[in-house]
Parts: sequence; structure tokens; C-alpha cells
Amino acid sequence: MRSFAIGVDLGGTNLRIAAVEDSGRLLQSLSTATEVARGRDFVIAEMAIAIRELARQFASTHKLLGIGVGVPGIIDLATGTLHSAANLPGWSNYPMRSELESRLGVPVLLENDANCAALGEKWIGAGREVEDLCMITLGTGVGGGFVIQGKPWHGLIGMAGEIGHMTVFPDGSLCGCGNYGCLEQYASATAIRRMAAEAVADGQASGLARCMESDPAFSARTVFQCALSGDTTALKIFAAAGHALGIALASLINALNFPLYVVGGGMSRAWEVFSPALFSELRKRSIVFRAGESSPGKQKSTTVVPAQLAGDAGLIGAARLPMIAKSSWNFCSLAV
Amino acid sequence: MRSFAIGVDLGGTNLRIAAVEDSGRLLQSLSTATEVARGRDFVIAEMAIAIRELARQFASTHKLLGIGVGVPGIIDLATGTLHSAANLPGWSNYPMRSELESRLGVPVLLENDANCAALGEKWIGAGREVEDLCMITLGTGVGGGFVIQGKPWHGLIGMAGEIGHMTVFPDGSLCGCGNYGCLEQYASATAIRRMAAEAVADGQASGLARCMESDPAFSARTVFQCALSGDTTALKIFAAAGHALGIALASLINALNFPLYVVGGGMSRAWEVFSPALFSELRKRSIVFRAGESSPGKQKSTTVVPAQLAGDAGLIGAARLPMIAKSSWNFCSLAV
Repeated sequence: MRSFAIGVDLGGTNLRIAAVEDSGRLLQSLSTATEVARGRDFVIAEMAIAIRELARQFASTHKLLGIGVGVPGIIDLATGTLHSAANLPGWSNYPMRSELESRLGVPVLLENDANCAALGEKWIGAGREVEDLCMITLGTGVGGGFVIQGKPWHGLIGMAGEIGHMTVFPDGSLCGCGNYGCLEQYASATAIRRMAAEAVADGQASGLARCMESDPAFSARTVFQCALSGDTTALKIFAAAGHALGIALASLINALNFPLYVVGGGMSRAWEVFSPALFSELRKRSIVFRAGESSPGKQKSTTVVPAQLAGDAGLIGAARLPMIAKSSWNFCSLAV
Repeated sequence: MRSFAIGVDLGGTNLRIAAVEDSGRLLQSLSTATEVARGRDFVIAEMAIAIRELARQFASTHKLLGIGVGVPGIIDLATGTLHSAANLPGWSNYPMRSELESRLGVPVLLENDANCAALGEKWIGAGREVEDLCMITLGTGVGGGFVIQGKPWHGLIGMAGEIGHMTVFPDGSLCGCGNYGCLEQYASATAIRRMAAEAVADGQASGLARCMESDPAFSARTVFQCALSGDTTALKIFAAAGHALGIALASLINALNFPLYVVGGGMSRAWEVFSPALFSELRKRSIVFRAGESSPGKQKSTTVVPAQLAGDAGLIGAARLPMIAKSSWNFCSLAV
């Protein structure tokens, strides 16, 4: 009898839940809007119902290993408390693990969502062959997570992976975090949109201006479409993002010499338009990257690739948590 | 009966060898000039003689665990080959471990010198209380090493810790590595001397100019003395170094959230004149640093401190290698 775990990807917008086999096969997944406005108790109740439903569905064919939940915030892992989550107002200092465990009667593991994505890619995505990887998520913001020796890396207070707030231009744009020139100010979807709006306001981007007029929901995706059609300004904006990402990544590669860096998040779909500038920076700025490239057969090259699991990485990584947990539980029996 | 190991700190200038007890007590140490000009076989022969002498001295009271050697270069750990070492011409692709083992008949472990220093500080220095730390060495250049979960972190090709080549100013000074604006260009002793010479050449630093005239061996130490006597230009130069170090360190803290960052190397003696600028940058640029500082009782603060073992860190860390090696050897019997 195979075993499985249930992974939860709790986002500020969507709540996704999946049953994942220990082979990595996605057995079934559910998705619903996160009704943040109805409060955390409502969301947790919905989550528990959906988890039970999935558990029931596979109870006859699979053994349940536990529940893993990816949360967009800072977690106190020792107590299972959600310390804070920017996109989940009212959830601060919430004893989420014990709340879920008492509702479900099975072990629950919490993990930061970026770490879950890194773990998902390590398990069945771009990082299958390595034990150490760094994942950078380019979305509305820029996030990150590390897997070190096969396990998510939390850091002292669970805040490891704040790659979006690495300084790339010390006198650059003011960031929401209070710093200047953070990576997030240049390589997020928000930054792409801002740089495009600035170029249009400067009157130097007629192509982009036309796109903006014709698309009321003007977004990074619009700028990407412009770039694909050859618009010079749009291409320059993505090159600027690749340039900034390259500066930060070159520093990480020089410091850590990991085998693999995975670029995920929605913006990673624009890989073809920003990655040339990224690799050009890596070759210029990282002696470690160059040393790997010049090794015989490039066998010791640093690999930098787009993520493979797209939006599922976090969900799959969350389901992986009970499978790699320190204490090996007995198989769980969820009162279905 | 207590046990001990012999540590070797092989530098381009000095060769140091010590017998260190498993308690961390330095039993005895020897120091000699590294006669690089006489070739590697001569140096290795001298090293083997000194190791035998130390081993003999403690053979009746202690059990020998093995030999650890810190080397200023890139090591292929699997084969025990010194891949390259900038300050040891003629030592490239040298099978150093097997050469030493065949001369001594006991197990030898090689390790990068910066990693040894990090390990020494972890064992009996500033890092005694933690399992994870980052060490930054400010010397002629800027080096670094990580200890993760109690062990030196090598990276894919043994090049982890190239912190001196993290980019702090993307359009800054050209570095020997080919990049622009590397940390090493601002926070090394070489950089301090260069910035002082530039200030004097600009005619804007009469105090420094006088120091330079009166000291034919004008060095970073001279600039430090000037700074201690209140010279504004010298103080600004050290603030610039602290500023650059703060930018790089803030990025590392945001990415890794380690509990401890140790600043060592000769230049760390100037801590009092560069650290205020360093901490000012950390508070401005690192959300993770700030989050730790504001935690209750500051119990989860990121700690940034000067090294405690000064020049002995690498030597002591090298001796530590046989004590933490994966395979637990039987006690060694060195043919004395």
C-alpha cells in the first residue's frame, strides 16, 4: 500500500489543497478563493473540511502520512505559531498548528511558502539531482527559499530567504522594507510594471504606451507581450530585471557555491527575455560561476534554471513536509 | 587519557603547526617562514618533520586523532588534491593529502584556510554557542567561510565563502577577479591603503600625508593609527569600509538569517573605527537584522562580532578537523 500526504498552499488570494502520493504523483487537488475577509476561523474551518474530504477519498488505497501547510509568513516552528503574514490580516500570533491538529487529529507541519516551493522543486522539479538549492521567486514581490542538505533552511527566526531584499543598487529605489535598491525594486512583476509606466510617462516608449492604452489591466504580462513582439523599451526593462537579478545571484553564488539556483514565480515565464542579461552578469561578476563553467565537461557548473513545477511547487513541497519530518510518525488515521 | 590533533596553517608567508587537545587547549605551537621559493617538496618535508616532533612530544600523555591542514586555495576534497593556491606557486594539482599521509602514516584532512578559521571560531571562539555561522576575514583581501550545522561548508567545487567578491557597488572599482565593485575593493587592508593614497594624492588629507611621509611602510595599520588620533580623512576611509561591509553583510543576513557573523582578519582590529558604519547599514538595509533586534529580550538577534581567536583561528580550526571527521578513526599511531 502506498502512502500519501496532504499539502496546503495558503495564499492571500487562493487556498489550494492537494493529496500527493509518496512517489510525487499529484492524486487530486482542490482550489478555492481564500476568503480572508471572513476571518481566520472561517478559512481554517474550510481548510479542515477540504483536508478531510481528500483524506477520505484516498483512505482505502493509501496510508496518510500527515498534513503540510505552506504559509506566506513568518512561522515559529517550535510552537507552530504563525508569527506574522503580510497578506493575511488578523492572523498574527495564531497557533495555527495546534488549531489544525485539534480539528483533524493528525500531525500538521507548517512551513514558509517560499521554502515549500524550494522543497517541491527539490523533490520532483528542477532540483531532483541535488541536495542543496536556492529558489528565487519572482512574483508581485521577490521571495526566496533554500534547501540545504535536503531540508528547508529556516534561519534563526524563520526569516531565511529574504532574497528580494538583498541590496543590488545601494543608492537605488526606496523599497517598502526601508532599504534602498533592493532586488525586489527591479526584478518583481511590480517593478516591471513600474519601470514600464515610468518609461511611458517619460514619453520615450510609444509602443508600450499603445499597449498600456489598449489594456486596462496593464501588467508585467502586458510588458512581456510587448517585449516578445520586439518592442525595444519592453526588452530593455526585462534586461534591467535580469541585470539586477544577476547582481544578486552572482553574490549568492560567490558566497555559497550551491550547485543549483531555480528561478520561479509568475515572472519566470519571461525567462527568455530577462535571462540573457542575467547570465551576462553572472559571467562578469562571479568567479565561482566562471570556475564551474570552465571545469572539464562543465560537470561542476553552477546551474541556473527556471522552475519546473510552475504554480504547483509550493503545494507539492507542502505535501512533502510530512514525508521528510524528523520523527517518523506511524501512519495517521484521520477520523473521516 | 585525553586525545589531541595536530593542526597546520599553511600560509604563503608563514607555516604554523600546533598540537591541540580535544578540550581546545593549545598544547604547543611552532611557527616558521614558509620557504615557498624552495618548492613544495621542501615545504612538505619541513611540515612532516615538525608534525612528527609535535606528535612525539605528546605521545606519552595523549592519543593522536589525526592531522588537519588549512590551505589557502581550492581543494578537491574527494581526492585530497590542492587544485590551486594563488600564494603557493607550483602547488597546483598537487595530491597533498596522499603525499602527507604516505610520509606520516596517519590520516590527514585538508580544508580551505578560511573554513578552518570559521571552524576554529565555532569551536572555541566567538561561535561556541551556535551551529551556523559566517566568518568574514578582512586581510590583504577579503575572504570568508561558513559553518553550517557544525561543519565547514564547501559548496559544489570547494569555492564557497568568496564573500570578498560579492558585489557592493555594481559600477565600482575594477577588482582583480574581473568584476566591478567587489567588497574586497573597499573593506580589505589593501583597499584602506589605496583609499588613503588616493586621498593624499587628491591633496585633501594633510594629516594622512604627514603619516605617509613619516612611515615608509605606510599601511592600513598607519591609517588606523591616524583614525585613532582623530584624523577625519582616516575615519572616513574606515567608515567607507564599514559601509561596504554593511551592504554585503545585510544581503547575507537577509538571505541566510544565520545567528552569527564573525569578522576576523588583521583589519578586524580596527573594529571600533569601522563598525559604527557597519551597524548603521545593517539597520537600514536588513529587515531580518531589524526583526531580530526588536524581538523580546533581543534573544533572536543577529549577532555580528569581531573574531576572538585572532591569528590562531585557522590553526585551531585545522586541528579540529580530525575531531569532527565523519569516519571515527581509531587513535593514530605515528611512527615517531
